[in-house]
Amino acid sequence: MIDHTHDTSATAWVASANTGHTDFPLQNLPYGRFKRAGSQQDWRIGVAIGDQILDLKAAAQLGRWPTDIQALLHPLAQGDLNRFMAQGPAARKALRAALFDALRDPAQTGSANARALQAAAAQVLLPQDQAEMSLPCQIGDYTDFYTGIHHATTVGKLFRPDNPLLPNYKWVPIGYHGRVSSIGVSGQSFRRPQGQFKAPDAEVPSFGPCKRLDYELEVGVFVGAGNALGEPMSMDQAEADWFGIVLLNDWSARDVQAWEYQPLGPFLAKNFATTISPWIVTQEALEPFRTAFEHPPTDPQPLPYLDSPANRAQGGLNIELEVHLQTSAMRAAGQPAHRLMQSNFADAYWTVAQMLAHHSSNGCNLQPGDLLGSGTQSGPRPEQGGSLLELTQGGKQALTLPNGETRVFLQDGDSITLHGRCQREGAVAIGFGACVGTVRG
Amino acid sequence: MIDHTHDTSATAWVASANTGHTDFPLQNLPYGRFKRAGSQQDWRIGVAIGDQILDLKAAAQLGRWPTDIQALLHPLAQGDLNRFMAQGPAARKALRAALFDALRDPAQTGSANARALQAAAAQVLLPQDQAEMSLPCQIGDYTDFYTGIHHATTVGKLFRPDNPLLPNYKWVPIGYHGRVSSIGVSGQSFRRPQGQFKAPDAEVPSFGPCKRLDYELEVGVFVGAGNALGEPMSMDQAEADWFGIVLLNDWSARDVQAWEYQPLGPFLAKNFATTISPWIVTQEALEPFRTAFEHPPTDPQPLPYLDSPANRAQGGLNIELEVHLQTSAMRAAGQPAHRLMQSNFADAYWTVAQMLAHHSSNGCNLQPGDLLGSGTQSGPRPEQGGSLLELTQGGKQALTLPNGETRVFLQDGDSITLHGRCQREGAVAIGFGACVGTVRG
Repeated sequence: MIDHTHDTSATAWVASANTGHTDFPLQNLPYGRFKRAGSQQDWRIGVAIGDQILDLKAAAQLGRWPTDIQALLHPLAQGDLNRFMAQGPAARKALRAALFDALRDPAQTGSANARALQAAAAQVLLPQDQAEMSLPCQIGDYTDFYTGIHHATTVGKLFRPDNPLLPNYKWVPIGYHGRVSSIGVSGQSFRRPQGQFKAPDAEVPSFGPCKRLDYELEVGVFVGAGNALGEPMSMDQAEADWFGIVLLNDWSARDVQAWEYQPLGPFLAKNFATTISPWIVTQEALEPFRTAFEHPPTDPQPLPYLDSPANRAQGGLNIELEVHLQTSAMRAAGQPAHRLMQSNFADAYWTVAQMLAHHSSNGCNLQPGDLLGSGTQSGPRPEQGGSLLELTQGGKQALTLPNGETRVFLQDGDSITLHGRCQREGAVAIGFGACVGTVRG
Repeated sequence: MIDHTHDTSATAWVASANTGHTDFPLQNLPYGRFKRAGSQQDWRIGVAIGDQILDLKAAAQLGRWPTDIQALLHPLAQGDLNRFMAQGPAARKALRAALFDALRDPAQTGSANARALQAAAAQVLLPQDQAEMSLPCQIGDYTDFYTGIHHATTVGKLFRPDNPLLPNYKWVPIGYHGRVSSIGVSGQSFRRPQGQFKAPDAEVPSFGPCKRLDYELEVGVFVGAGNALGEPMSMDQAEADWFGIVLLNDWSARDVQAWEYQPLGPFLAKNFATTISPWIVTQEALEPFRTAFEHPPTDPQPLPYLDSPANRAQGGLNIELEVHLQTSAMRAAGQPAHRLMQSNFADAYWTVAQMLAHHSSNGCNLQPGDLLGSGTQSGPRPEQGGSLLELTQGGKQALTLPNGETRVFLQDGDSITLHGRCQREGAVAIGFGACVGTVRG
């Protein structure tokens, strides 16, 4: 059921939210953590609206909020998103409705709170281009899934031509643990990793700078209240629980990965950096972009612990994804980033609820702010590969960029930007903002 | 160089530390986090001495410490071990020397601080059997290595009879990321996990309680100051950095593991519980138990980033390890736990310094309090398997216990206890305390 926070006729008193092409209209309201760039301020929680940020610390002080909403704003005004995440879906929905009303043009509603905030606009808003963003919350554990079946098939073919998709793939939402310490927010740059690798024809391995540096296009899911140790989430609990979604770039050192990953999985090939977009788009904002979800009838159907009527009816999420590359030569010449591919998260083989239900099915406790990567989201066609490994057929087929440069893998100075956008007839389109990361030499 | 804190003639003013068989003589001084059992106290940092705990909050107030030691005690008196870990080896050595002197019998030294603390014994000591322990510090990330070559070979044979040890094993200190949220301290009990598995002859997988539940005998290494993102540690930095060691039980669901682990490694087979012993035995306490470390001359020698003269001379650690099993029938009959095996951490194929140097070699940042598991420490002989998978030859050969019960894998009510002890001629023996965990139905 779509509530009033998706009313397509509602506009904000922040003009830049009403342009039709912003990622952050009144119907989005994602959470992030920011401070005025270059200031000594503590990190604050804010909500993106148009090209501005609503500062929830200032807004809590200057608005006219009912008591229950003041209580929800309390941890957020202290810069603590985790404590809000822990309160679960009812709190999320209540605050969303209150923020929607508070940012809605008071000419539409006559809301005293909206009038008060609009009058205090200079104190409660900060332009996004004057803000520095951090990770939106404390991430306790990070897990990366492998829900992109087109990615799994294409990459599987490179490693195992006769047996691309392993027998467990269509039964188990495959996942593995990742590294929290090296997760950064959009704008992150990182040194090209060094590592150990062995060319197929080499006698012995060597150690040096990674030669096959790649990106992976993923979305990241933040856990809401989570579950206690030993108490798995049902599919319905999992569906209600997840807090929201960001874009996620799972940078990968392919030469290191090929040599190290047997038998315990990728390790140093992945943990030198992971970049996420700064704004968590909530489950509630994504509500209009749900889609039906079913495995093809010729495939195994999910085991009962991974199945529910709600998941079949609307477990999928229609999120259009894109990857853009800008080389340092392009940057120097003032040329924009070049789009490398497009795909859609609706093509994932497992849903967000299935990721949480599977993860907790053995009793593993998920905690507020834990991050779950979706795995690389490639589309069904070859040009829809979510990584260079796929787009260059394992490094065999160079890509030619509009300025004549070629790429097999990433070179120093290359920036990768992920974009995500949700749109459909009858709903206001929303987006995720950019997720940018740059390779240093 | 062995400093005075290993003086074999030194005894403590806490009588139970001088028995010769305690794990915690004056020469050990491990750190843990505790409170009086059943109290509403905040968690405090303490040091185990004999059968007592020196409460560092009370000791900081009631002792006569020089200014520099007062400063080191400050975060510890606030219950924060991570902030002390972050200060690196010089701080660690200085505080160790001060604690050694403060707990040493003042009749031997005439120390005014030792006299003051002894006089305040009732306020600064708590009997260990009246304490409740927690995890000793905040663990940011947990990584599990695979340094036990005998384990890797035996387990490899079960999965790949023709090719037990993969070609990377003797080049790469194999590791993978683990789950932080489900790490518990000795005394932990956990529900038998449920999971998805597929018998070799089954058409399709099923979901239900794990039937092949196992333990793994490991040690856990706590990171000290760590390294900044993008700045790998040299072998010498790695050797200086690590803070200390605990015992670690990496509980494993073998049926889940066999079905899920390709291609990204173990996940739900491991993350339902991990148990560590409560006392971190410091690098400085382990100094007398170092051993020479070299790969056999017929094996590949470590690449330069994993090699150093100091590592060859003394990179190994002589830690005697044991696993004991007590079933609920044994408990009910008042029978003690039965020793299943013995091994020694000196048989590991990679050293602690190599684990840290490898982990950071790609620029991955290690942080104070991060935990690195060693992987299962099996000995060279079949009866030295560090898991039931090994001791029962993949579940084919049941073990018979002294009371006539048999075990292939763990049953509900079974408790596993790990012990570790260091001893040699010319040094006071030290131990790790027990690491106990119990399977619930």
